Amino acid sequence: MSKILIATANEHKVQEIRSILAPLPWEFLSLRDVDPRLELKPPEETGCDYLANALLKARYYGEATGLPCLADDSGLEIEALNGAPGLYSHRFLSQCTHQYQKNEHVLELLSQRPWDERRALFRCRAVITGLEALLGPGAPEYLEAEGICPGFIAFQASGQEGFGYDPIFFYPGVGQHMAQMEPELKNFISHRGRAMRQLACKLGDLFLAQPTT
Amino acid sequence: MSKILIATANEHKVQEIRSILAPLPWEFLSLRDVDPRLELKPPEETGCDYLANALLKARYYGEATGLPCLADDSGLEIEALNGAPGLYSHRFLSQCTHQYQKNEHVLELLSQRPWDERRALFRCRAVITGLEALLGPGAPEYLEAEGICPGFIAFQASGQEGFGYDPIFFYPGVGQHMAQMEPELKNFISHRGRAMRQLACKLGDLFLAQPTT
Repeated sequence: MSKILIATANEHKVQEIRSILAPLPWEFLSLRDVDPRLELKPPEETGCDYLANALLKARYYGEATGLPCLADDSGLEIEALNGAPGLYSHRFLSQCTHQYQKNEHVLELLSQRPWDERRALFRCRAVITGLEALLGPGAPEYLEAEGICPGFIAFQASGQEGFGYDPIFFYPGVGQHMAQMEPELKNFISHRGRAMRQLACKLGDLFLAQPTT
Repeated sequence: MSKILIATANEHKVQEIRSILAPLPWEFLSLRDVDPRLELKPPEETGCDYLANALLKARYYGEATGLPCLADDSGLEIEALNGAPGLYSHRFLSQCTHQYQKNEHVLELLSQRPWDERRALFRCRAVITGLEALLGPGAPEYLEAEGICPGFIAFQASGQEGFGYDPIFFYPGVGQHMAQMEPELKNFISHRGRAMRQLACKLGDLFLAQPTT
């Protein structure tokens, strides 16, 4: 069975991606599996957009390990903040040492805003590189997909599941904060779930498009 | 957690569909789960194409149980036999009481044909009905998807996995008969796997397209 490295130091993402892609016929490795002491330093995410950052991570870890790599870059885009934190979601409010402080800060920034000015969306751009090892010679350098999850910034944080901005993100379709959802439901609804399912569809299409003669 | 009935009396299909759709946030039931004595007689598959047959099964079991239903209709299309058995794959050669006899018969029909005259494909049309229970009011009556898997009829049967025509279907992309593949690999490559993944993508899109105000 071919192995694919999930090219992220974020263990939450590893878990999510593994469960979303569980039915695929490949073994998904974490960085810890290939680099138990985490000696490989994560690359700086200097790309000009999500796709560039995802590719940067996949190529960096692909070169270091020789494995096909799956990477994503994601962000929360808040309408009333002109799309911030967006590409800088991870580095946003870097003076905050804990995520819950960032969440509190976002709630404060929007404290005077009614529901209809609290629109936000999560966006995920996912890529997979090293396709020749999976699909044979002639495969493209990478495949990419995008997933978007629209919702609102809630008035207060809620929920113990998920990670990052999940506690303050309200998804009206099920009437829950992202951090209140069971992992399976979150993975169905989330930007990352959608991007990964799309990537699985595209991989399948490409696999079947291989010459049959 | 919402429940979805896999509307088929074929236990092989139930297993395949369950494992392909395992990451979705719903419980997939088999007919045995809802009708342990199998008192519901399967409907006659009188539709004029795969889609009509899939819908016929989903609607029939949906009406009988009140559950959202997932159904598919699939067939093997052999170029040298003008697309037969196609829509009639299940009923093809009904004088044969065992599938292996059908497989032997197909091999005989093509016995004089070289590789390049042995092209064939598996086609699957999948539908899901009863979407209001999953997506809320205003959902469409059904969603549908199609999956195709191209290959060749081999010169002899091989492999113990899968079911139906899998032993005589050779997939050159991995150099194996469908019945030689591990279930995960088959589910990635197969017509049914592709159709189900597409359906999962479409369900996700629809779920996220629900109004957010």
